[in-house]
Amino acid sequence: MTDAEIPTSSPETGRRVRREGARRGAGDGKAKLQQLPRRAITRHFPPMQIVSADEIESIHRASLQVLAEIGMDFALPEACDLLKKAGARIDGERVRFDPAMVEELIRTAPPEFTFHARNPENNARIGGNTMLFGTVGSPPNCSDMDGGRRTGTHADYRKFLKLAQYFNCIGFISGYPVEPVDLHASIRHLEALRDAVILTDKPFHAYSLGAERIRDGIEIARIARGISAAQMEREPSLFTIVNTNSPLKLDTPMLRGIIEMSSLNQIVCVTPFTLAGAMAPVTVAGALVEQNAEALAGMVFTQVVRKGAPFIYGGFTSNVDMKSGAPAFGTPEYMKACIVGGQLARRYKVPYRTSNTCAANTVDAQAAYESVFSLWGLTMGGGNLIMHGAGWLEGGLVASFEKFVLDCDLIQMVMEFLTPLDTSQDALGIEAIREVGPGGHFFGAAHTLARYTDAFYAPIVSDWRNNQQWLAAGKPEAWQKANAVYKQALVEYQEPAMDAAIREELDGFVERRKREGGAPTDF
Amino acid sequence: MTDAEIPTSSPETGRRVRREGARRGAGDGKAKLQQLPRRAITRHFPPMQIVSADEIESIHRASLQVLAEIGMDFALPEACDLLKKAGARIDGERVRFDPAMVEELIRTAPPEFTFHARNPENNARIGGNTMLFGTVGSPPNCSDMDGGRRTGTHADYRKFLKLAQYFNCIGFISGYPVEPVDLHASIRHLEALRDAVILTDKPFHAYSLGAERIRDGIEIARIARGISAAQMEREPSLFTIVNTNSPLKLDTPMLRGIIEMSSLNQIVCVTPFTLAGAMAPVTVAGALVEQNAEALAGMVFTQVVRKGAPFIYGGFTSNVDMKSGAPAFGTPEYMKACIVGGQLARRYKVPYRTSNTCAANTVDAQAAYESVFSLWGLTMGGGNLIMHGAGWLEGGLVASFEKFVLDCDLIQMVMEFLTPLDTSQDALGIEAIREVGPGGHFFGAAHTLARYTDAFYAPIVSDWRNNQQWLAAGKPEAWQKANAVYKQALVEYQEPAMDAAIREELDGFVERRKREGGAPTDF
Repeated sequence: MTDAEIPTSSPETGRRVRREGARRGAGDGKAKLQQLPRRAITRHFPPMQIVSADEIESIHRASLQVLAEIGMDFALPEACDLLKKAGARIDGERVRFDPAMVEELIRTAPPEFTFHARNPENNARIGGNTMLFGTVGSPPNCSDMDGGRRTGTHADYRKFLKLAQYFNCIGFISGYPVEPVDLHASIRHLEALRDAVILTDKPFHAYSLGAERIRDGIEIARIARGISAAQMEREPSLFTIVNTNSPLKLDTPMLRGIIEMSSLNQIVCVTPFTLAGAMAPVTVAGALVEQNAEALAGMVFTQVVRKGAPFIYGGFTSNVDMKSGAPAFGTPEYMKACIVGGQLARRYKVPYRTSNTCAANTVDAQAAYESVFSLWGLTMGGGNLIMHGAGWLEGGLVASFEKFVLDCDLIQMVMEFLTPLDTSQDALGIEAIREVGPGGHFFGAAHTLARYTDAFYAPIVSDWRNNQQWLAAGKPEAWQKANAVYKQALVEYQEPAMDAAIREELDGFVERRKREGGAPTDF
Repeated sequence: MTDAEIPTSSPETGRRVRREGARRGAGDGKAKLQQLPRRAITRHFPPMQIVSADEIESIHRASLQVLAEIGMDFALPEACDLLKKAGARIDGERVRFDPAMVEELIRTAPPEFTFHARNPENNARIGGNTMLFGTVGSPPNCSDMDGGRRTGTHADYRKFLKLAQYFNCIGFISGYPVEPVDLHASIRHLEALRDAVILTDKPFHAYSLGAERIRDGIEIARIARGISAAQMEREPSLFTIVNTNSPLKLDTPMLRGIIEMSSLNQIVCVTPFTLAGAMAPVTVAGALVEQNAEALAGMVFTQVVRKGAPFIYGGFTSNVDMKSGAPAFGTPEYMKACIVGGQLARRYKVPYRTSNTCAANTVDAQAAYESVFSLWGLTMGGGNLIMHGAGWLEGGLVASFEKFVLDCDLIQMVMEFLTPLDTSQDALGIEAIREVGPGGHFFGAAHTLARYTDAFYAPIVSDWRNNQQWLAAGKPEAWQKANAVYKQALVEYQEPAMDAAIREELDGFVERRKREGGAPTDF
């Protein structure tokens, strides 16, 4: 073992890292990036309510009426059979639900559960007053300011995974942070999920694009954790986002995904894609009725597949630009939908999924304000699992490297905002005020000297230099700092350790499944 | 009267405007800017609490202890005499307050009041669950992307006043939006306040830089409203920000300002400038103790001058960058201080002043996220009078024309967020969902067609074009749109009507006071 390979300990996580990487980070004269240590995020205040309990009941009853009278299309005979046995009325693909049946069947979904990672330090409690931020998921394109906007590749995908691992505020991988389009669709999930468990040790996602991909995802999660199938079934270690085809349709691959996932007690999040004015009524309340009907139908189906299977209520209601039909994000309407969605999820006593969104084309002021308005809505509204936490740009069509860093800074600011204020006698500082007295200053006070190094949040991106210094530095804007930081983070990135036997089993599984042809692409 | 001068009516405000201006706005082929109509802003949910009632009492008691044991310097013998008569202990300039005396004297400050404007449509209720956003106030510099950063001039000052009048979301003028440095300090207030009442008809501010400027400000407000001194005394029509010299000092010109304002029943807002780590303890709680002690001392003094005089509790606690000592704004610490400040103001049953701040050097992502974090804190925290609502950049050293427009968009988004969600049966849209059914879309639904023109907030700055259209347009960033909008707003601006007799009296007063030499500049 050479000196460069001697394992040492990271001061921030306590986890063992290779000294080589730590050296490399410091070796070119750059200080290591500073970030918050990995920690659970807890909301210490009650979530916000912008409609009354009566109004929530109105939305609830309207959703039940939609499900009873209009119904929802389930494009899989097996799913219809299961629902029929549970008491639903079936007419072709159309499934209608008796309100009492819905109310009864949704009771078994658990209010909270633990989402397991291959590194137990990254296990996360989902539900209640916890928050967990993930990467952006699923954009077909990526961009940075050097290479511009381009179709996502395997190489870009791996870079985003490294950033997801590097930044402690990122709690999970939301699907592919960018679609690795140069991997053939039949084996993409195998390569991509192998990368996810090798390059990161955080919990992750598999796409519900048919049964095979989900089965492969579950097996990869099991192998990476080095556990038995029985333990895997006790400990949810994979999640899937099921987007309805709004209005009121669940397609075949998604339904197969739910069956595979819920039957093995893995996590299903049903997220209707209800853009008010396009796939949903033009009113926010109407879009929420549709969202709620679709989410309830999905929740019912998971519980029909397996009582007690972990379910997350997904909200993604936003509006469109009525001039162009383009989706709008981070709008006042988005904020309201986000908060009412949380009220509904809590009505059903299940965790709530939200998103950090924007519609901006570049990492400018618009990208920032739409994202912070999103964070405002989802934080105050009680979001638990936050998809697209970092990197989302252009309404989800682009994963931006600079936006990823910017968002990590924003997430860290939310984390610091959520940290309770210390109002101990010592923090109240009466003696410091006495020491300094009228007209003095606190720079040299004992109270200050004892605390100044970590008194305040130190941002990643913000430039607080005065105008003279900022001009001398070439007038950098926030995206330029973010660009430098993402590159430095990739240099400082440390691949998490993986047991050699696990790695062998993982590679064996992936290679075998690739030889078998992977998964069908004819959906 | 020529055709161009025929008065007509604005569709947005109902106020009479000159057709000339309306024509000019449309004359160059540009559509008129769209903005929200003028309306009162009401918060329909309870303000957020991040510390408990017990913790508020701890901060309250610590502040009282500071005022009793350490005391505060009042640099004006007349003020010390008044406080002595009210029961305070005086030792030179140092004033110490018995806790019971503070508790007793602050009771008389009114919980709410109306701030009167020369146009009664712009009268604003201050306190309770109302919000009123003002312009940026007091930067020595201004900037736009064309002319760059420069010392403020009378011409720039007038442009900002026009923007303040133009944008309906701006409720008041927070002092000079940029300092008109080319006006001599002795007569600056006369020219600047004359401009304020001619170019706008919204409520405004006078600086507490000695007694003369305040007296002149009160007279200009009275003349502009065309009312008697007695009516003026019944109807507060001017406000002043009193910044303490933190820690624990009130200087001579500020104290003279309070005496003039409070004795005539005008509005005093005492705002301690408590940057944690510099002029206040390095802990947020400690800075809040100091803020609260200074604000309470100021409140006591206003009520000693005149029981029942309108008072606003000002909060401006933020932190500094401990590496450089530079002030930081829109930080997590700022948000917390903003929210606890609101809890304290409500403890004392007086309106609460906050600010929309940032420390960015330019109108980039940082400027936006720091501002929206500020808006998050102050909106959830129950801010009533929001200083620096639009235009603040670089920690208040610069008034930015582009940031002014950006902030108006942000304020409008907050206004829309605060609008209660319509959950009527019609809004729930069950019939629209029935009409469209599974797999359809809502673009052509009757429910959509009846509502689409004003279903959603139409932003001023946000660019929601798709990537192709955005590239074809030259990849504009948010600041570029804001730049174009501010110029168009200046073109569309309409000077509010003023009675000829009032104008004559106003000019007569200002010219006489200028001939008399204005106000002393030796403070």
